[in-house]
Amino acid sequence: MKIKGKDRRALWFEDGTIRFIDQRKLPYKLEIFTAKNVDDCVFAINEMIVRGAPAIGAAAAYGMVLGKDNARKTAEILRKTRPTAYDLFYAIDYMMNKIKNGEDVSNAANDYVEDIIDRCRRIGENGEKLIKNGMKILTHCNAGALATVDYGTALSIFRIAHRKGKKIFIYIDETRPRLQGLLTDWELEEEKIPHVVIADNAAGHFMRKGEIDIVITGADRIAKNGDFANKIGTYEKAVIAKENGIPFYVAAPISTFDKNIEDGSQIKIEERDRNELARINKKTIMPKWTKVRNPAFDVTPARYVTGYITEEKIIEN
Amino acid sequence: MKIKGKDRRALWFEDGTIRFIDQRKLPYKLEIFTAKNVDDCVFAINEMIVRGAPAIGAAAAYGMVLGKDNARKTAEILRKTRPTAYDLFYAIDYMMNKIKNGEDVSNAANDYVEDIIDRCRRIGENGEKLIKNGMKILTHCNAGALATVDYGTALSIFRIAHRKGKKIFIYIDETRPRLQGLLTDWELEEEKIPHVVIADNAAGHFMRKGEIDIVITGADRIAKNGDFANKIGTYEKAVIAKENGIPFYVAAPISTFDKNIEDGSQIKIEERDRNELARINKKTIMPKWTKVRNPAFDVTPARYVTGYITEEKIIEN
Repeated sequence: MKIKGKDRRALWFEDGTIRFIDQRKLPYKLEIFTAKNVDDCVFAINEMIVRGAPAIGAAAAYGMVLGKDNARKTAEILRKTRPTAYDLFYAIDYMMNKIKNGEDVSNAANDYVEDIIDRCRRIGENGEKLIKNGMKILTHCNAGALATVDYGTALSIFRIAHRKGKKIFIYIDETRPRLQGLLTDWELEEEKIPHVVIADNAAGHFMRKGEIDIVITGADRIAKNGDFANKIGTYEKAVIAKENGIPFYVAAPISTFDKNIEDGSQIKIEERDRNELARINKKTIMPKWTKVRNPAFDVTPARYVTGYITEEKIIEN
Repeated sequence: MKIKGKDRRALWFEDGTIRFIDQRKLPYKLEIFTAKNVDDCVFAINEMIVRGAPAIGAAAAYGMVLGKDNARKTAEILRKTRPTAYDLFYAIDYMMNKIKNGEDVSNAANDYVEDIIDRCRRIGENGEKLIKNGMKILTHCNAGALATVDYGTALSIFRIAHRKGKKIFIYIDETRPRLQGLLTDWELEEEKIPHVVIADNAAGHFMRKGEIDIVITGADRIAKNGDFANKIGTYEKAVIAKENGIPFYVAAPISTFDKNIEDGSQIKIEERDRNELARINKKTIMPKWTKVRNPAFDVTPARYVTGYITEEKIIEN
C-alpha cells in the first residue's frame, strides 16, 4: 500500500525485529511498534496493534523467527493469542513443518508472507476486470492492506483499478460499532483514491438514488453453499443491493472457503462487549443504564451474492 | 410520558412561563429550561432544547401567549426559527386566527397542545391493537413523547400496550449520525418497557434470525401515494423487513400526509453538516481529512409499508 507516496506494509521483518504499523493509533497517527522478542509479538497481537486474520498469521510466522531457538514453546505461546483467527494456527503449523524439515526459518516466514501478499495482489488483478471507468463503489468495514499485510482484498481491487488509471469513487460505510470504515478512509486517502465516509444508515439511500454501481466487501468465512460471514451490517447492504439491481461481490482468498461448513446456519455469531457500542476512542457515548446487544458479524445467504473474487478466478454465483 | 414514575410532558406552560425538558442534556441529565419571554422561546427552538415538529408547534403556540401583546411581531420572529418544520407555521397561523377572533390566547394555546396530545394518544390506542403479547418490536430514531409533547407516535403504541399489561420487548436502532435512539432508550427506561439499543447495522441480523415480529417507525412526511420520508436508515429497515416477511408500520398523525406531493420523488432530501457525523457530544471521532456525505432523511416507497397507524384508523396498504 502507498503511505505518503511510498510502498509500505502493515508489518515487516527488519534488523532482527518485527515492525508493525500500530493500528491502535490509526487513523490519527502513523506510529511503528517494534517487536524485539516473542513477548513483544504476543503483545502486538493481543493488543490489536495488528488486526485482520491474514496479518495476524504473518505476525505469527515472523514471531516463530524471533523464537526459533525454542520453536515448540514459541508455537505454544503464539497459539494462545487470538484463538478464533484461523490463519494464526495455519501459519504456526506451516512454520513448524519447515523447521522440522530443517529449512531456513527466515526464508520460510518470508515465503509465507509473500504468498499472502501475492494472493491479495491477484484478487486485485482479477477483480479489477469488473471495474469500469467512472464507477461508484460501496464497501463495508476494512478489507484493506492493514488486515492482509499489503493490497487487501476488496481494497486490492480499488488500488489496482486506480493504479491502472481508472476513475473510481468509493462510498465507505463507517461500520459501527468499531468504525473500521475510518481505516479504509485512511488507506484510500494515502492511495489518493477519491472517496467519502457515510453513516451505515445512508448506504441504502445512495443505492436507491442510483449513486452506487457495485458493492464489494471482504468475507471472514464462506460456507460450501456460498453463504458467508462478514462484519455486522454486510447482510443489510447485500439485500438492499439486490433489491436495487446492483451487483454485490465478495473478495476473499480461496482459504476463506471453509469446506467443513455446509451453509451459513452452521456459523456461530459472536456477540461482543457492550463497550464496543457504548464507547468510541475510550470515551463513553451512552448512559450507564443503556443495555445493548452487539453481534460482531452477520451471515449473508448466497442468493444475494453476484460472485466471489478470489486469487484464482471470479466464481460467478 | 412517565418520568421517575410521574406523568410529564416535553414542555408545558406554568406561572406565565414555558418549561421545557432540555433535550440538549438528555439522556444524561434531566434539566428544565424556563422561557420567560419570546426571546427565550426562540432560543429554545433554535438551540434544539425542544425538537420534533409537533413539539416545536406546541412551543410556538405557547410562545404566542408570551408575546400576545405584540402578536404580529411575535409571529414574525417565531416563523424564522426552524423554517422546515411545517407544524411551526400551522401553530402560528392557528394562534393568529384565534387572536383575530378575540378568543383567549392561553385557552387557544392549551387547546392546540391538548389536541396534539390527544391525537398521539389515539395513535397509541389504534396501534396497540396490532401488538400481541410477547411481541418483539424494532423501532428507529425517536418517535417519542419528546418529539410530540406526550405519548409520541410509535412510542405511544408501545406505552399503551405496556400500560394495558402486554409484554413487549423493543429493539432500538441507535440511529447514527445523531443517536436519537438514545432518547428512545431514555423514554422506554423511564416507562419501564424492556428494550436494548443496537447498532443500525445489527437490525438486519436480528430480523433474519427471527427475533423481530414487527417494525414500527414514525414519519416526517407522507406523499399521496404512501411513499414517506423519515430519518436516514428507515428505508433499509423497511426493505429488510419485507424481505423477511415482517410487517412494517408507520405511525403518524393525519397531518403528516401531504396532499400536495404525489410521490416520494418530490421530497427533497436535506444533506446536513459534516460535524453531525464526525462528532459525538461535541467530541471529534473522525480525522480532519475525512470527507463525509450526510443525508438526514431517506424516502421509503409505499410498497414496503404494511400500513399507516393514524389517530383516526389504521390505513392498511
